[in-house]
Amino acid sequence: MTTMQAVAKLHSGPGFAYIQKEIPTPGQQEVLIKVQATSICGTDVHIYKWDHWSQNRIHPPLIIGHEFAGEIIAFGDQVHPDELQLGDFVSAESHIVCGTCQQCRLGHAHICPNTRILGVDTNGCYAEYLTLPVNNVWKNPKTMPLEVASLQENFGNAVHTVSTVDVRAKTVLITGCGPAGLMSIPVARAFGAEIIVATDVSPYRLELARKVGADLVLHAINDNVSQQAQDIVRHKNFDVLLEMSGAPSALAQGLSLLKPGGTAALLGLAPDTLKDFDLNNLVIMKGITLHGIAGRRLWETWYQMRALLTSNVVDLAPLITHQFPLSRWQEAIETMASGKSGKIVMYPGE
Amino acid sequence: MTTMQAVAKLHSGPGFAYIQKEIPTPGQQEVLIKVQATSICGTDVHIYKWDHWSQNRIHPPLIIGHEFAGEIIAFGDQVHPDELQLGDFVSAESHIVCGTCQQCRLGHAHICPNTRILGVDTNGCYAEYLTLPVNNVWKNPKTMPLEVASLQENFGNAVHTVSTVDVRAKTVLITGCGPAGLMSIPVARAFGAEIIVATDVSPYRLELARKVGADLVLHAINDNVSQQAQDIVRHKNFDVLLEMSGAPSALAQGLSLLKPGGTAALLGLAPDTLKDFDLNNLVIMKGITLHGIAGRRLWETWYQMRALLTSNVVDLAPLITHQFPLSRWQEAIETMASGKSGKIVMYPGE
Amino acid sequence: MTTMQAVAKLHSGPGFAYIQKEIPTPGQQEVLIKVQATSICGTDVHIYKWDHWSQNRIHPPLIIGHEFAGEIIAFGDQVHPDELQLGDFVSAESHIVCGTCQQCRLGHAHICPNTRILGVDTNGCYAEYLTLPVNNVWKNPKTMPLEVASLQENFGNAVHTVSTVDVRAKTVLITGCGPAGLMSIPVARAFGAEIIVATDVSPYRLELARKVGADLVLHAINDNVSQQAQDIVRHKNFDVLLEMSGAPSALAQGLSLLKPGGTAALLGLAPDTLKDFDLNNLVIMKGITLHGIAGRRLWETWYQMRALLTSNVVDLAPLITHQFPLSRWQEAIETMASGKSGKIVMYPGE
Amino acid sequence: MTTMQAVAKLHSGPGFAYIQKEIPTPGQQEVLIKVQATSICGTDVHIYKWDHWSQNRIHPPLIIGHEFAGEIIAFGDQVHPDELQLGDFVSAESHIVCGTCQQCRLGHAHICPNTRILGVDTNGCYAEYLTLPVNNVWKNPKTMPLEVASLQENFGNAVHTVSTVDVRAKTVLITGCGPAGLMSIPVARAFGAEIIVATDVSPYRLELARKVGADLVLHAINDNVSQQAQDIVRHKNFDVLLEMSGAPSALAQGLSLLKPGGTAALLGLAPDTLKDFDLNNLVIMKGITLHGIAGRRLWETWYQMRALLTSNVVDLAPLITHQFPLSRWQEAIETMASGKSGKIVMYPGE
Repeated sequence: MTTMQAVAKLHSGPGFAYIQKEIPTPGQQEVLIKVQATSICGTDVHIYKWDHWSQNRIHPPLIIGHEFAGEIIAFGDQVHPDELQLGDFVSAESHIVCGTCQQCRLGHAHICPNTRILGVDTNGCYAEYLTLPVNNVWKNPKTMPLEVASLQENFGNAVHTVSTVDVRAKTVLITGCGPAGLMSIPVARAFGAEIIVATDVSPYRLELARKVGADLVLHAINDNVSQQAQDIVRHKNFDVLLEMSGAPSALAQGLSLLKPGGTAALLGLAPDTLKDFDLNNLVIMKGITLHGIAGRRLWETWYQMRALLTSNVVDLAPLITHQFPLSRWQEAIETMASGKSGKIVMYPGE
Repeated sequence: MTTMQAVAKLHSGPGFAYIQKEIPTPGQQEVLIKVQATSICGTDVHIYKWDHWSQNRIHPPLIIGHEFAGEIIAFGDQVHPDELQLGDFVSAESHIVCGTCQQCRLGHAHICPNTRILGVDTNGCYAEYLTLPVNNVWKNPKTMPLEVASLQENFGNAVHTVSTVDVRAKTVLITGCGPAGLMSIPVARAFGAEIIVATDVSPYRLELARKVGADLVLHAINDNVSQQAQDIVRHKNFDVLLEMSGAPSALAQGLSLLKPGGTAALLGLAPDTLKDFDLNNLVIMKGITLHGIAGRRLWETWYQMRALLTSNVVDLAPLITHQFPLSRWQEAIETMASGKSGKIVMYPGE
Repeated sequence: MTTMQAVAKLHSGPGFAYIQKEIPTPGQQEVLIKVQATSICGTDVHIYKWDHWSQNRIHPPLIIGHEFAGEIIAFGDQVHPDELQLGDFVSAESHIVCGTCQQCRLGHAHICPNTRILGVDTNGCYAEYLTLPVNNVWKNPKTMPLEVASLQENFGNAVHTVSTVDVRAKTVLITGCGPAGLMSIPVARAFGAEIIVATDVSPYRLELARKVGADLVLHAINDNVSQQAQDIVRHKNFDVLLEMSGAPSALAQGLSLLKPGGTAALLGLAPDTLKDFDLNNLVIMKGITLHGIAGRRLWETWYQMRALLTSNVVDLAPLITHQFPLSRWQEAIETMASGKSGKIVMYPGE
Repeated sequence: MTTMQAVAKLHSGPGFAYIQKEIPTPGQQEVLIKVQATSICGTDVHIYKWDHWSQNRIHPPLIIGHEFAGEIIAFGDQVHPDELQLGDFVSAESHIVCGTCQQCRLGHAHICPNTRILGVDTNGCYAEYLTLPVNNVWKNPKTMPLEVASLQENFGNAVHTVSTVDVRAKTVLITGCGPAGLMSIPVARAFGAEIIVATDVSPYRLELARKVGADLVLHAINDNVSQQAQDIVRHKNFDVLLEMSGAPSALAQGLSLLKPGGTAALLGLAPDTLKDFDLNNLVIMKGITLHGIAGRRLWETWYQMRALLTSNVVDLAPLITHQFPLSRWQEAIETMASGKSGKIVMYPGE
C-alpha cells in the first residue's frame, strides 16, 4: 500500500476534500508516523470556514490537522534518535522551530519567530500517515489512552496558560469554556486553585465546565456575573484571570474582577483589535500583570502534561464528547463548529 | 508664629491660591514636618488646570503637593518611633494606606485599595509645614542634597517601574521622557541595561534624555523610530519596553518593537480608553508580559532609591532644571506646564 | 473569677508545673483571648526536657505553648481594630515582630531579627487565657473546626515550606514525617505534586504519611530508599526535596536523590553542626538551590492556610491522633515525646 | 602543513608535554578552528599538578585547555550552519551536552548529566587547531579584542554566578578573588550592586579586586572582616554573598554576614567535604537561599557576556596580567600556579 486517505484544503475557499495521496517519505531528520487518532482544534474549523486569518495564512493544497497520537514506523537517514524506536507510541509538538534564533537558544522555542505549524504551514495529521521532524516527536507513556494522547497539543495550551501564573491557594476566574478553557479547569484545580469560577455564553459548555470541576459556572450574559462571582470569593475579587475566550467583553469583565496586584493569562484571541479598552483602570492603576500566552513551552509543558495525565490528577475523558472515523470528517467538523461539543477525536483507517 | 504660607485649591475650577493658614497640629500617630523643599509633579499641573480627573477626585479646599523633603519638628501623642527623632531629615511616601487589607498584609501596600494620597485626598506639602502619619515618613541620609531628597516620591515611580522588569544585559526602549521617563534612564543603566533608546515628541526633553545617559534618543514623529531603533539593537528588537508617556501610539509602537517573550512595564496613563489596540499581535501571539505600575513599593523602592542615590550611581541633579521660592509658585507651575522643564523644586519660607 | 490554670516552666531544669495565676490584662495594643484549644509542638517537648537549646533560650517562669484557637474577650485601650470584634474566633501568629526593621518594612516579617516568640520569649497559650499584640491575631472562619484551627501555627510551617518551592507537576521527596513533615504531604498534593515519596524511621509515622496521601513511604534505614524511590520516579531522581527531619543522613540522602537543577526546602533543624557535608557534589556541581525555611510568611501563609482548609483540599483531621483536657498536660506531653503520635490537642477548662 | 603543536597530558602523573600532532579532522557535525588565543583556568593547573580530582577524571593522552578564541577554517559534512561561515571569529561553550535529556529539553543544558568537557574529557584548545561540535560554537563580535574573547568561558562562570541572584541596589560580599571572583566584581557593579566588598588571602589579588571596582577589599585573615565590612554596610549585614573561593571558612563567614532572607551563590569548590557546617544558624533559621552554580547557562550567559563586553560596561583588560606564546606554556602555568596573576593568555603559533 503506497497511498493514504487524508482531509485537505485543495483550493482557496470554504470546505475540505477527502483525498487519496502518496504516503510521504521522511526527510533525513524526520520520522514517518502512522496516525491512530487525531482531534479537532478550533483553528481547523477556521480553516474549514476560510475565515480572514485563513485566507492570509493558508496556502492550498494542504493536509489539515495538528493534534494526534500514533506510532513511529520509519526514520529518516540521519536520525540518530537516542530515545526513540520503531513502534513507539508518540504525539508531537505542532510548532516546528528553527533551533538557532535567540528565543530557541534561550530555551523559549515556543515563541521562535521562525515557527512553522503542522497542518497550517506544512501537511498535517488528518491523514493515515504523517512525516515530522524527529525533534518534534514526544514519546507517550504506553498506558496513556489513545484518545487522551491525541488531545495533548491542545491540552498543552491549557497547561501552559495555567502554569504561567501561580494559582496555588488562589481564587481563579476562567472566562471562556471552549476546549482550552475547559481543560484549564482541572489543571487549575490540580495546581492548587482554591475557588474556580468559569463563564461562557453556552449552557452546553457551562455544563461541561461544571462536570470537570468548576466551583461555580456563570452565563456571561444571563447571570449577574459580578455579583455572583463576588459572593463566592468573599467579595474580595479574584487573584487570577485566565482569559480563554477572546471576547473583549470577557477580558474587560475579567480584569475588572481582579484584585489589585492580580495576574491574568491571556490565551483567547480577539476577533479584531480592541475598540474600547480601559488600560488605565483595568491594568495600570491596579498594578495588574498580563501574560500573553502562545503555544506550549518546549518541553516543559509536555513534561507537565505527562505528570498530570499519568498520575490521573487530570482526567480529560469527560471532555471527549464525540468520536468519529476520519471518513466522517465532515460530520465531525460540523459538530465542532456547532459549539455543542467538547473535544472531538477522529480515527483514520476505520 | 502660628500661621504658614501654602498653595491651595480653594474652589472648584482652574488655578490655585497662595493662602495664610494655621500650622497644623499632628494627630496621635502623626508627625509635624517643616517643609524645606517641595517639587512639582504632573499631577499638580492637572489639578491646577482642573482637568476631568481632578474634577472627580479633588475636594477643595485642599493644600496641594506630595513631593518634599523637610525636618521633623513635633510628634503626636502616641508616636513611639523607634528610628525617628526630632530634627531628622525626612521625605515621605505619599500613599497613606490602611495597613489592614489583604494587599497591605501581604506586603503589597502600594496597591492598597483604601489608599489616600497626600496633596490629593489630604492636605499636601506646598506649604511651610505639614502633618503626616508617622508610618509614611522616610528618613533620608544626612548627606543627601535637599533638592534631590525632594524628588524621591517621583523618582520612586521610575525606580519601581524599572525594577519590576529585568533589564540586566537587556536592550531597553523607553517611550516618554517626562520626569519619570527621564529618571528611568539612569536607573535602567544602573541596573544593567545594555542599550537604552528613548523616544518623545519634545526636543527639549530628548536633550535631557541624552544628558542622563540614553544611548539613542528619537523623536517619535519626526524620526523613523522603527528603523533607527533597530539599527542600534542588531535588528533583533528590544527585550524591555518602559512605557512612560501614556500615548496610545507610543504603547503600540513600543510593543511592536519588543522581541517575542519581551516584557513591558506601563506607568504612563492614557488620556482615555484605548480605541484600537491590537492585543492579539502585540501581546498574545508574541508571548509578551505587561506589568501595570502603580506608585512605589513600600518600602522596597525607598531602599532601592537610597542605594542608587547615596552610591552616586544615579545622579538626578541634571534633571532639576528650575528652582523657585514657594512664593513664586505660579511661575513654577506655568513653567512645568510648558513642557520645557525637567523637575522643578520650590522652597517654602524664602 | 480572676485566676486561671496554666502549664508553666517555673525553674531551670526538666518538667513543667500546673499553676494557678492571675488572668492577664491586655496592654494598650493587645487583646485578651480565652483559649479554647491548644496543640503541642515539638519545641514544647524540648522545653519540657530542658535540652541545650532551651537552657540558652528560656527564662522561667514562663507559661508554655504557641499553637491555639480561642475567642477574643477584651481589647487594650488603644486597639482600633478594623476587622476584629469581641467574640471573634481567632488563632495567632506566634512570632511577635518589631514592624520597623528592614525585613518587616519589606514584607518579610517572618525573618525579623527582633522576633520574640509566644510561649518561648513571652507567656504562651497552655492556659485558660492569653494576651497578645492585636497585630498577631488572625481571624478564623467560623466554620473551621476548633481542633483544626488550633493547629495552624504549625501547619503554617508546612505550608510555608511547600509553597517556597514549585511542586506543580513535580516529583517530591519528603524526608521526615514528624507533624510538619506529615502536614506537608497533603499540601504538596494540593499544590500539584505528581509523585510524593516520604521517609522516616518510625513505622507509626510512615503509616500516618500513607494515610494523608504519600504515594510511597519508605523506612529510612530498613528500606533501600535510593532504589525504591527511583523506581517510582522513572529512575530520573526527584525535582524537589522537602527536608523536615533535621537528620544529617536524611539531608545527604535527599540531596543525592535530587535531579541536577533541583530545589530543596529545609525546615528540619539538625541536632548539631554538620560534620561531613559534601557541598560540592550534593549542591554546587548539580546546580541545586536550597531554601532555609523559618516560621511562616506574615500573612501570605495564613491566607494560603485559609484557602487550603476551608476548601477542604487539605484535611488535617487524620493527623490529630490524641486529645486531652489541659489538666492532663503531662500525659499529653509524654505521648508527644514518645514519637507515637501525630498532633495532640489539649482543651483548657475541661 | 598537517601537524600542529599542542600542550598535552601524556601519562598519569604531574606535568604536561609539548607535542607535535596531526591536525584533527572535523566530524560530521563538527567544525575545525584555528586557535588564536587560549587562556589558563585553575582547572588546568589542577590537571598539571595531577591532584586527586584529576587522577579520577582525566584519561591521558589528552590535549588540555578549554578557554579560547579563534577562527573557523573547516566544517564537517553534515553541518548546515545557519549563522556560521568560514572565517568567523568564534569562542566556544566548553560543556558538550547531550541535547536529549530532561535538563537539555527544558533549557537547562548547563546541568546536563551527560556533559563532557573540552580539555577534560575531550581534546582541548592548548593547541594550534581544535575540533568541536558546531552546536558549541559562539560567534564573537568582530570588534571584540582577541585576548578578551578568549576569557569568555571563564567569564561566563562569573556572569552566571552574579546573574543567578538579584544584586540590584543590594550590598554584595564576594569571598575569593581568583579569576572568577575578580571578574564577578565588575559584573556585580554592572548589574546594580550598591556596595561591593571583596575578601581574599592574597594581597596581590586584593589589589586587582580594588582595580576592577570593589568598594572595599579585606584580607580574610589579617583584617577584622566582620567589623570593617559592617561599617560600610551601615551595620545591617549583606543582601548577597558570592562565594568564589571554596574555602569553608569563607563560606561560614560569608553566610554569617548575610541578612535574614539573604541570598548566596556558590561557585567555589571546597577541597573536601565540610567538617563543621552550622546549617541551622547560617541557613535555616535566617531563611537564607543558596544557589549552587555549575558552568554557564546555554546560551543566556553568552548573550549576557556579549552585552556586557560590547557595551564596555565591563572591562576585563585589567585582569589580563600576563601573556605568553604557547611555546612558553610551562612558564605560563607556573605563573598561574603561583597565585600572583590574574588571567594569563597564551598565543599558539608564535
